[in-house]
Amino acid sequence: MPGDNVTAGPAAADPSVAEMAAASLAPDAESVLEPSRHRTFIKSIVGGAATVEELVGRKVVVGGWVKTGREQGKGTFAFLELNDGSCLANLQVIVDAGVFPLSQLVATGTCVLVEGVLKKPPEGTKQKVELKVEQVLEVGPVDPSKYPLPKTRLTLEFLRDFVHLRARTNTISAVARIRDELAYATHTFFRQNGFRYVHTPIITTSDCEGAGEMFQVTTLFSDAEKVEKELKQNPPPSESEIEAAKLLVKEKGEAVAHLKSLKASKEEISAFVSELTKAKESLAKLEERFMMKPGIPQKDGRIDYARDFFGRQAFLTVSGQLQVETYACALGNVYTFGPTFRAEHSHTSRHLAEFWMVEPEIAFANLEDDMNYAENYVKFLCQWLLDHCREDMEFMVKQFDKTAMDRLKLVSSTPFVRISYTKAVQLLENVTDKKFENKVEWGMDLASEHERYLTEVIFKKPVIVYNYPKGIKAFYMKLNDDKKTVAAMDVLVPKVGELIGGSQREERLEVLVDRIQEAGLPLEPYEWYLDLRRHGSVKHSGFGLGFERMILFATGIDNIRDVIPFPRYPGRADL
Amino acid sequence: MPGDNVTAGPAAADPSVAEMAAASLAPDAESVLEPSRHRTFIKSIVGGAATVEELVGRKVVVGGWVKTGREQGKGTFAFLELNDGSCLANLQVIVDAGVFPLSQLVATGTCVLVEGVLKKPPEGTKQKVELKVEQVLEVGPVDPSKYPLPKTRLTLEFLRDFVHLRARTNTISAVARIRDELAYATHTFFRQNGFRYVHTPIITTSDCEGAGEMFQVTTLFSDAEKVEKELKQNPPPSESEIEAAKLLVKEKGEAVAHLKSLKASKEEISAFVSELTKAKESLAKLEERFMMKPGIPQKDGRIDYARDFFGRQAFLTVSGQLQVETYACALGNVYTFGPTFRAEHSHTSRHLAEFWMVEPEIAFANLEDDMNYAENYVKFLCQWLLDHCREDMEFMVKQFDKTAMDRLKLVSSTPFVRISYTKAVQLLENVTDKKFENKVEWGMDLASEHERYLTEVIFKKPVIVYNYPKGIKAFYMKLNDDKKTVAAMDVLVPKVGELIGGSQREERLEVLVDRIQEAGLPLEPYEWYLDLRRHGSVKHSGFGLGFERMILFATGIDNIRDVIPFPRYPGRADL
Repeated sequence: MPGDNVTAGPAAADPSVAEMAAASLAPDAESVLEPSRHRTFIKSIVGGAATVEELVGRKVVVGGWVKTGREQGKGTFAFLELNDGSCLANLQVIVDAGVFPLSQLVATGTCVLVEGVLKKPPEGTKQKVELKVEQVLEVGPVDPSKYPLPKTRLTLEFLRDFVHLRARTNTISAVARIRDELAYATHTFFRQNGFRYVHTPIITTSDCEGAGEMFQVTTLFSDAEKVEKELKQNPPPSESEIEAAKLLVKEKGEAVAHLKSLKASKEEISAFVSELTKAKESLAKLEERFMMKPGIPQKDGRIDYARDFFGRQAFLTVSGQLQVETYACALGNVYTFGPTFRAEHSHTSRHLAEFWMVEPEIAFANLEDDMNYAENYVKFLCQWLLDHCREDMEFMVKQFDKTAMDRLKLVSSTPFVRISYTKAVQLLENVTDKKFENKVEWGMDLASEHERYLTEVIFKKPVIVYNYPKGIKAFYMKLNDDKKTVAAMDVLVPKVGELIGGSQREERLEVLVDRIQEAGLPLEPYEWYLDLRRHGSVKHSGFGLGFERMILFATGIDNIRDVIPFPRYPGRADL
Repeated sequence: MPGDNVTAGPAAADPSVAEMAAASLAPDAESVLEPSRHRTFIKSIVGGAATVEELVGRKVVVGGWVKTGREQGKGTFAFLELNDGSCLANLQVIVDAGVFPLSQLVATGTCVLVEGVLKKPPEGTKQKVELKVEQVLEVGPVDPSKYPLPKTRLTLEFLRDFVHLRARTNTISAVARIRDELAYATHTFFRQNGFRYVHTPIITTSDCEGAGEMFQVTTLFSDAEKVEKELKQNPPPSESEIEAAKLLVKEKGEAVAHLKSLKASKEEISAFVSELTKAKESLAKLEERFMMKPGIPQKDGRIDYARDFFGRQAFLTVSGQLQVETYACALGNVYTFGPTFRAEHSHTSRHLAEFWMVEPEIAFANLEDDMNYAENYVKFLCQWLLDHCREDMEFMVKQFDKTAMDRLKLVSSTPFVRISYTKAVQLLENVTDKKFENKVEWGMDLASEHERYLTEVIFKKPVIVYNYPKGIKAFYMKLNDDKKTVAAMDVLVPKVGELIGGSQREERLEVLVDRIQEAGLPLEPYEWYLDLRRHGSVKHSGFGLGFERMILFATGIDNIRDVIPFPRYPGRADL
């Protein structure tokens, strides 16, 4: 049962410890601690494997927030629907008026920690068990007139103004549990397949694709503020002050030289040398302050990034791929899972400025291996949710998307269709029952409408499209022998379209150099990336899965801002 | 065996798919893919549970990088020590000259994919098995005169100039595996204890402690660059151009009004309205361009952050704690595990600008619960390494720290000492055999020298110090009844000193407000944090573990820059 691991009592003295130390363990006024109290998760009561018979009569401590509360029997007792976030279901709790003032407990959002005994509820009620409270241990009250999340159903849009409280709602807490399960499933899948988790950097001086708007990371503003403050408190020296200080250094220097020429005693000389040193230090400080300029440091009319924290321009990563390749070219199978960033002014329901990506990278793997891993990974995630998130998924089906569960079942059990880009374009060109907004022709990038038509209408299952025209794909993708296409692949799924994008990477040095130059990019920033091809180059492949997209796909929720705890988008970064 | 999960062949057509779709699955020129090839990890050969008898005679494909290679028998065959990063040990590989030109295989760093048969090595050799190569499938050559990592032993400092290649060395790859294991152990521990993983944001508009230098995240520089470029290509309009455009709008407007007064036909009017609209749009564009100013946008003599991406100043997080508290106050037991940032100009071996933190947050938990979780977590990590990383840990013992393994055993099996801060100060005041650089007196913060003396000399085991003076701790820590101390705790371990810092959080609204104001902080940015105490407040606690510190502690490596894949520090952010 969760929580059971924490059973360590106060530490006992080890007899081998020195006497002094041992003595310290005797309790003193400062060391008296409130004892630990074992709390039982509601999930282990209402959602656990325990039978009613095993539960009834058990004394438990339970904590949570009141979903709904009502006084009954003319105020002689109250029913509380208590939720602690461990699962969607609530525990029904009964408190007698003699135990605690009921009016302080029944407001929605009230936090309570109670001790009581599990009882069998009256026949005909739907609860498995209910809790008869013997003692109310703690209360965090709510003033219903001020509580921002009343019991009425609230829209997800409304809740976005309360990111600090919205996890108390059924939807956002269910999303949080699904998100947690998908994260754990991700680590489990890759571990089972011999992958190592590599933490690629957030702050980067590389640009993954030479495209993509990036956020800049800087201390220039705060440095400038410090300088400004400093200059205000303590104005910079005048030129004459500097001259005076220079003169002093000169005088002290001459004095030392004079003493030396007189062969004065060591003590005498060193006293003067010390004065000279002081004069020099004071001059240096004045000169430094004299050079202080308010504002962002400039050089040759441009911002002087040499004076920024990293000595050059630095950005937030748009992908960990290039960096994780360095580890694939040493450890074989690796993956990164972390936040990535785009400074795009997109206000759509599918874009965030900060979002999480899963990016495996596999040595000795070609495009087919890549597709196999991608397919197996997505299937694994879907099956995991079916196995571990039934209750929350049923809630999603009821509230957001009737087909959500069926979609998981379909994807987890059906082989993905695999077609070349060229074939996909042919299929789309032959479509007569729908007019696409973007014209279908070889060479175009597939738009979301095309992707969804392929997976939702033509095949009605996940589709992997591979071998895209090189003109629409990144420089690092392996050029195929036809010289027209690259070994790229996208996994398309119903509801969201592209879920995964991947490719075999170009492992041939000369071809990669050409591709970088063709893309109009400078070689210098990619020298380290080219080094991987210069020294023991290896065929390798990888892909990226947008983690929030996967949650949208799984839950059927429409807006990406509702499936990440703290959404960041233009104009908005709460908390 | 790792890698075995990937067995999906090309997808088979589902009979229910429309005919058109089915036809597409017939192979075409574009859809021909290089087939997937099953690679066996070297770990499963040399480090697996398989006996020599089970292995001998097996045909396998193995890929990796040559650690050392040498031609033997007057060039008739070569020995290669092959490593694929799946484990520390190499596989001995034998290639006959007739199979492949040996000179292309033996250089250190060469990448090879080979197929062969596992054989029993001659009596007296230390290998369990060796691989007799039948076919060399792929080679990524190395020019030894240019390879930056020759076979000689290289210092960790030297390797920091090659972060893109250093994972090929024994030390850095062993660190990578240990890091991966600790990450997986972290997720496992918290899952077993009913915690949910919450992704707290990297970009934040909150400052966790009102201290700590933060990196700023901005698009103002790139926006300014765009404006500058735009103005250069296309100079802003003059005032007279604006006046002319205004006049045009006026004329068109009058024309429309005139037509309307004449009761002209709809067509006629709408033609003129459309001209008016165009004139207005053109004026708006001119005015917008007229307002364009080069440089960073200013307002009232200060930088105008309202025009930055998020409409306000945004930073990189220094801790996910405050944000994860919002989820603890809804889901109960949660944790965050991700990168955090400090823009401090520290050049020490213990500081990074970007580092990873594990931060659990526990509802209904007091300080003793917090200590219990912290102690159990650290013990769990140590035991995990003993169970899963024997080979890499033995390497660390041999190369870096003879006591590394003993330290893990000690910590995993010994109850941690728990003493109050007051007692700790008393103990330190009584120390006679050592003179501390920082004077010991009640109210001081414990320096590293004090922490290490407590854990290494006095107790010789992990120590938890709790109830610190409120003056040296953050505002959010719970004020004890003595009003002098707060319910904070630090876990001190041999070798690194402070490994964990945690506290019970102040859940009382009024006390928290007082503490924020005492700290000289404004209330407004913390209103959301105060809301957690206003509405259903809950007793809760949490702690933070510096992930790189844990790796230093485990491995005995001295410099933090060597235990993170891509270290960031002042002046340095490679890749």
